[in-house]
Order: sequence, then structure tokens, then C-alpha cells
Amino acid sequence: MKFKILTLFPEMIEGVLNSSILGRAVKNDRIAYETINIRDFSQDKHGSVDDYPYGGGAGMLMQPQPVFDAWKHATGNDRQVRTIYLTPQGETFNQSMAEEFAREKELVFLCGHYEGIDERVLEECVTDYVSIGDYVLTGGELPTLVMIDAIARLVDGVLHNDESAQTETFDNGLLEYPQYTRPAEWMGKEVPEVLLSGDHKKIEEWRLGMSLERTKVNRPDLYVNYLACNSEEGKERRRKNRRKREYRRNNS
Amino acid sequence: MKFKILTLFPEMIEGVLNSSILGRAVKNDRIAYETINIRDFSQDKHGSVDDYPYGGGAGMLMQPQPVFDAWKHATGNDRQVRTIYLTPQGETFNQSMAEEFAREKELVFLCGHYEGIDERVLEECVTDYVSIGDYVLTGGELPTLVMIDAIARLVDGVLHNDESAQTETFDNGLLEYPQYTRPAEWMGKEVPEVLLSGDHKKIEEWRLGMSLERTKVNRPDLYVNYLACNSEEGKERRRKNRRKREYRRNNS
Repeated sequence: MKFKILTLFPEMIEGVLNSSILGRAVKNDRIAYETINIRDFSQDKHGSVDDYPYGGGAGMLMQPQPVFDAWKHATGNDRQVRTIYLTPQGETFNQSMAEEFAREKELVFLCGHYEGIDERVLEECVTDYVSIGDYVLTGGELPTLVMIDAIARLVDGVLHNDESAQTETFDNGLLEYPQYTRPAEWMGKEVPEVLLSGDHKKIEEWRLGMSLERTKVNRPDLYVNYLACNSEEGKERRRKNRRKREYRRNNS
Repeated sequence: MKFKILTLFPEMIEGVLNSSILGRAVKNDRIAYETINIRDFSQDKHGSVDDYPYGGGAGMLMQPQPVFDAWKHATGNDRQVRTIYLTPQGETFNQSMAEEFAREKELVFLCGHYEGIDERVLEECVTDYVSIGDYVLTGGELPTLVMIDAIARLVDGVLHNDESAQTETFDNGLLEYPQYTRPAEWMGKEVPEVLLSGDHKKIEEWRLGMSLERTKVNRPDLYVNYLACNSEEGKERRRKNRRKREYRRNNS
């Protein structure tokens, strides 16, 4: 699986993608990435890529031409490649979207900076508008890295057995139960007895009970979802939205 | 404002905090950060910090002792310092939490790896359990960086005037309107006429209309929130949760 990242700050991307589990996956050819510096596509002799917004207001916007040329360079103008723009205006990223994206062979990420990007070039090349949460960041690089991390760990061979993607939070729509490791007693605090019992059925029951309890208390929204088991609806809504965007793009 | 980060992968943190807008803020002494490598506090001759979970299951857990000693080193055992643990089990991070955290002088972040951290040490030192969204990541470093980015940009002097934090998405609870910059015509696409009119009242109206429309279509949940204007309730709920955790910690 290949990730291509259009950015003004390639060094932010590279530091993270060369570290830890992702760095190992790159080294072992499980994933690959390429950063494309949007500034290299400026036609301005000063290499500038931004200008003031029409209609006034604070901040600078990224201009359409350098972004579009960088995107064409990354995709060969292939409009089938999914191009993700990170923006608070997007659909909120979640685990089932991560699973959907993990089935692609190639993903292009467009990282905005300053106040954002001219709307016309977004219409031209973006297939997916995604937000990682309801907060404002200084640019699209960190949310791009978050998405790549969530997607890459689902790719075959990226996690080792002892980092298994199984029985994780959200896999069953519930929060994870509390976990304990050695020593059995630490600062006067003991591990719950049932976990030392060796009775696997009892352990499973205790864990499910803790998961349900935690989810109910901390995330009543997920608890309701778990009960309603409505994940298919969300997928269908995303499919519809994508078709709508594709239609608009092909007819623009 | 100072950020202290307890992690097994300090190089992931440093690359990002030395780049772009955050890097400039560090250079200009607007913010400061320190990474503390949890592995340095291992008492094991191999420097190991993880072990198998009690009760079975995939993955390894971080042990309580090295985490606790790293935390004591960072805080001087001061239980008033807010210590944030990044976990999908936490309360979902949002802009009003970012504003609340931005009022602190110091924040400690605890980054989990492997399958998580022994529950007992979390009870001992964590004041805030926070999740940046409903997806699973390989570790706590990226969500920590996301939180630091969202918080730091609210600190005085971190953003320059032309990157102003004003009129941003979520400041008024609505998604941002589309933006346009030079040239006025690009690939046959023209900037909406109203933005070239110079009539500021009309421009404001058009922008608010686009914001409302976008929010209604893309994020009906935010639209309902905007209408109900219920942000005070959320703050109150968080205050209550914090008091509960403090009580539990002081009485444990």
C-alpha cells in the first residue's frame, strides 16, 4: 500500500513515518510513502504558494495552481485515485472508515496550511473530505499522519503477532476493559482475582462486563450504537456521498 | 506554557515539535517541551518495560513501575499537575477542551504503546483520559501531538497575525465557509461575484449562509448543537468528571 502526501512541510511527515511501528513497516516494504512538496510547483520566482482571500478576512489561502500541479504530479491526473483532504469540514474519521481505506492500493493526502485552500482546486481533485475530530489544528500534516497510522496498522504484516489488531477497542463497538500485567501486587494494589483464576470463561465474562460498563458510563453514544448495531447505515451513507462527489466532479 | 511528554519514542515527538508553526513557537520561547523516555526508568537489565497481560490475550502491556517513575520524574510527584492519558476510552477531545487546557501552565502527556498500560498506574497518576477520535492507533504519540498542536495555537504569540485564530471553524460552532484567492478566474472557474463586490455586509451574509448550509448538510449534529447552544453543559460535565477523579485519587 502506498501513501502519497502533498504538503508544505515534508519533514513533519518523514520524521514520524520513519519511527516506531510505521518506520519498521516502511523498512519491511509493507507500506511505502512519498512526500510531494507543494512549494516545488510554485510558478512564482519567490516560490510563494499563498495569497489573500477574496472578500477579506484574516489569514492567507493556498492558491489553486501549485496545489493542482502537485496533485497531477502525484496521480498522473488519474481521477480514480482517492484523494483525501483533511479539513474540519469533512466527515468525521472512524474505525470503519479506516477499514474501508485500508482496502485501497494507493491513497493521496492533501495537507492544507494557513487558512485553507482555494475551493476551486478542492472541487477539482478531492474525492474524500475527512476530519479527525472537532478541533482546529495548524495544518493537515498531523491529521494525515493519524489517518495513515490508523489505516497502515490494518495492512497485512504491519503489526506483529504480539501487537495483534484483535480484540481492540471499537472492533466490537465497545471500549476496552482494564488490563493488568506483572507484578501481581504493586504499591499495595492487587490485580483483580478473576484474572489470576485461569478460568477462561469467567475471565471473558468479567472483561465483557467491564467493557459494557465503561462504554455505558464514558460513551453513552457508543453504547446506544452498540445496541442498535447500525454500522451498515454509516457505510451506505459514505458510499452515497462519494458517488455524489464523483458525479459532481465528472460533470463539472 | 510547557508540555512534558512521557513516551517510548521521543524521536516521533521531537521531529514534529521542531517543525513548522510549533517549531517556530519553541524557538521564540512561546512554548517549551521536554520528552521523557519511559525506557530510561526500567529497572530491568535489558531495559524492558512491558509484560504479558494477566488473564491472557494478545499483545503486551506497559508495566506500572517504569511509567510511575517517569511520571514522578516529570512532575516531582506533584498531583496537582494535569496528566493526560491518550486512550480510546477517554472523553472525546474538542475545541472547548483545547481552550480549557490552554489556560494551564504545564501539561503532562502519557503515551501508551503496545496494548496499553497497567490500570493501577493510570489510577495513580492520570487526571484526564482523552481520546482524539473513534479509531485505533499504534500508540499515544500522534494523538499527543494533535492535542499539543490544538492547544499551542491558542497560546498568546504562537500564531502570527496572518495565521490568526479568529473566525475559524468551531469558534462559533459552525463549519467554515468556502474560501477563494487569486486568480479570480482559474481553469474556467470564477470566484463567487459577491466576494469581489466590496460590500462587507453582503459578504458576511453570504459567508454565514454558506456556513449554516454546510453545517446542516455535512454535520447535522453540530447544527443541532449550534441551535441549542449547549456548550456550558459540556464544560460542567467535564468539571464534575475531574472532581470525581481527583476525589478517587486522593482517597485511593
